[in-house]
Amino acid sequence: MSARFPEGLAEILPMTAAISADGHLTIGGCDTVELAREFGTPLYVYDEAHLRDRCGQYRDSFAAEAESARVIFAGKSFCTLAMCRLVAEEGLYLDVASGGELATALAAGFPAERIYFHGNNKSESEICEALVADVGRIVIDSFEELARVAHLAREHGVRPRVLLRITPGIEAHTHEFIRTGQLDSKFGFGVEDGVAARAIKTAAEEPAVELVGVHAHIGSQIFLLHSYAKAVDVMIDFLAETKANLGVDLAELNLGGGLGIAYTADDTPETIAGYASTIVGEARRHAAERGIAEPMVAVEPGRSITGNAAVTLYEVGTIKEVPGIRTYVAVDGGMSDNLRPMLYGAQYEALTANRAHEERTREVTIAGKHCESGDVLIKDARLGAGLAVGDIIATPATGAYGWVMSNNYNAVPRPAVVFVADGRARVVVHRESYDDLLRNQEP
Amino acid sequence: MSARFPEGLAEILPMTAAISADGHLTIGGCDTVELAREFGTPLYVYDEAHLRDRCGQYRDSFAAEAESARVIFAGKSFCTLAMCRLVAEEGLYLDVASGGELATALAAGFPAERIYFHGNNKSESEICEALVADVGRIVIDSFEELARVAHLAREHGVRPRVLLRITPGIEAHTHEFIRTGQLDSKFGFGVEDGVAARAIKTAAEEPAVELVGVHAHIGSQIFLLHSYAKAVDVMIDFLAETKANLGVDLAELNLGGGLGIAYTADDTPETIAGYASTIVGEARRHAAERGIAEPMVAVEPGRSITGNAAVTLYEVGTIKEVPGIRTYVAVDGGMSDNLRPMLYGAQYEALTANRAHEERTREVTIAGKHCESGDVLIKDARLGAGLAVGDIIATPATGAYGWVMSNNYNAVPRPAVVFVADGRARVVVHRESYDDLLRNQEP
Repeated sequence: MSARFPEGLAEILPMTAAISADGHLTIGGCDTVELAREFGTPLYVYDEAHLRDRCGQYRDSFAAEAESARVIFAGKSFCTLAMCRLVAEEGLYLDVASGGELATALAAGFPAERIYFHGNNKSESEICEALVADVGRIVIDSFEELARVAHLAREHGVRPRVLLRITPGIEAHTHEFIRTGQLDSKFGFGVEDGVAARAIKTAAEEPAVELVGVHAHIGSQIFLLHSYAKAVDVMIDFLAETKANLGVDLAELNLGGGLGIAYTADDTPETIAGYASTIVGEARRHAAERGIAEPMVAVEPGRSITGNAAVTLYEVGTIKEVPGIRTYVAVDGGMSDNLRPMLYGAQYEALTANRAHEERTREVTIAGKHCESGDVLIKDARLGAGLAVGDIIATPATGAYGWVMSNNYNAVPRPAVVFVADGRARVVVHRESYDDLLRNQEP
Repeated sequence: MSARFPEGLAEILPMTAAISADGHLTIGGCDTVELAREFGTPLYVYDEAHLRDRCGQYRDSFAAEAESARVIFAGKSFCTLAMCRLVAEEGLYLDVASGGELATALAAGFPAERIYFHGNNKSESEICEALVADVGRIVIDSFEELARVAHLAREHGVRPRVLLRITPGIEAHTHEFIRTGQLDSKFGFGVEDGVAARAIKTAAEEPAVELVGVHAHIGSQIFLLHSYAKAVDVMIDFLAETKANLGVDLAELNLGGGLGIAYTADDTPETIAGYASTIVGEARRHAAERGIAEPMVAVEPGRSITGNAAVTLYEVGTIKEVPGIRTYVAVDGGMSDNLRPMLYGAQYEALTANRAHEERTREVTIAGKHCESGDVLIKDARLGAGLAVGDIIATPATGAYGWVMSNNYNAVPRPAVVFVADGRARVVVHRESYDDLLRNQEP
């Protein structure tokens, strides 16, 4: 295991990634080439140690900053039974964004009182499901929803604890699609235009719910901690004004998620410890400055727990050289298992799993098998000179928003998901069959 | 039924769309508001008459131009059992782009000899499936695949008829993702760089396959017939040179698909009859000019058959006004049932199904329910002044690449699909349940 990864790869691979004596990429002590053979390709391979390490870093970093702080895993990045169980074991809370995510969490035995229920447009039936399950918090996104939750809570004879989602008016530097803190957003109540204050007043006066705090999320894949500090300041100011003007004292400040990760060697993310210290420290400092009690801080990390925990394995099917233009390497997956390159222009790296030590000197375009030119996973990937049909290609950092967005475009069955740890692999999601594609169709 | 649709809508709605006495949008004689109530929302509603009409227009327009012409439905735009059956009934051929699409077609009882098998990276098992089924044509995309098909054909003791996919070197004016005719493409053998000629020679000399023709596809959502005429010329030139230089006489010229449709009132597509006449006429004219026999022309329409055949129905859950900026109307679907706005920046229109005659004077942004700012279906939609929570919104032109790209992001179950005709609705794909989301997960 003495061989080293070519430059830039170790930082984006799962933490247990190594190279075997025969040059194969191993994760969790499992040879990925063997995994590809045993479980087929494409295959999502998650490093369980990595997932637990990141959960633990969050849990411990925030606990070190403030005893009351809560870390809530953002289920949407990888909402599976196996992940919900792991998150419960690691002692985190869980955020769900739909009835289906709630159903998954409950089926996994996740404690309902540790669940936060999100969504900009929860249906009546989803709200009922949350009330019946008696989830820990419902995060309310609009006046209609406040009325809806209050009405249904009365009908069910329960009094849910709620947060209001606030739009702090911060423009985070990230892709437009995943930027959520600005006033022009489908989410939440705006601070700037006074709507948030009105919402707090309405919710505080609504006896059917117990208003316990506020939530704000400025976006995803954020690299600058000062964006968070700014959001904390805006929210602490808002809590201070809420107390002063409305006499409403709110104990909970949920700051959402968004800590950036490294998809490629060019990305330089902040540490989880630094993030915890910035958020809790700034909340403490500014709360004292504004003369209010330090709020109970909560965060909702998703991608920074799951993103680098996985690689996707593919087999190379064809290599097409267009002389003077580029070389297309076609793999057996594509936009059905990783939409992020097409949706966000997201960049990834790749390596050859069966020659993991190989210097990556050859520039190629890794395309998928879908009947569409846009089906390109990596436009300018670097692979080794030995590249050949039948090679197993691994794309690191596909643990977040890969499987959850997977689809059956071109009637391609969705891949299996395996968890690896201590030399053992277990299937947590089985590969779809052709029968699965037809299951819900009228015969 | 005397009320008329506001300007620009009739052109993009299914052909049987009308307005009932109480102002509801009807399709196939079914009240869409009733459909939403009965089958839930989101809901894909397909007008069976429209599908059959477009199949018929293709069949008859091409038959009128040349007896030998073939119309091959591009399954990828809406590959369901119900659609495969309808296409078989209408006498078209079918193109499939994967083993899963082939399995769907065969499960629907589609005659294998009328199936064209596509894909830039067919797996060995997919090729075997096609050989066992004895499909009509395999469209070969690369040298590796030619060798693979030949090898497997020998093993199976069959001799498949094959076309070679040729890249004609034409830059069609359409979205980069769906432009496929240019040399820099993952698809096919390039004409310009001489690779195509070499591929023809290799395939013609390969006794394990019967080379019968060539295939070219210049892209999707194309509005200019002269792009097609240009492609025809390039391909006829190529056939003439193939005959002259290699002594290989190829009878079949498959020109792919791509005829544009109207998603909004700004789109002005060509007619199917005009398309047929351009393609067949140009092939005939230029073949005569080059002194070769007129080839058997085939086309592969998908979107222009299915696109305008359907609307998606949603219910409005919340309406959020951001003063001075925009009004967000949140519906109960989004990027899980229609990825095209996010993937391609595709534009759609909307109308209120329960007030279908209403003038659309109010500009709003129609957002989905997903936990992501990018989840916006229509940025600048026009709806009526009466807009209210609980309204049923219909988005026309969602019949192609909607359901086939649908996914379970945020663990949202995929919608049902209904076919409507003559006042009757039948479910062809059932709505997913939470159980479906968990079915393949290890408990």
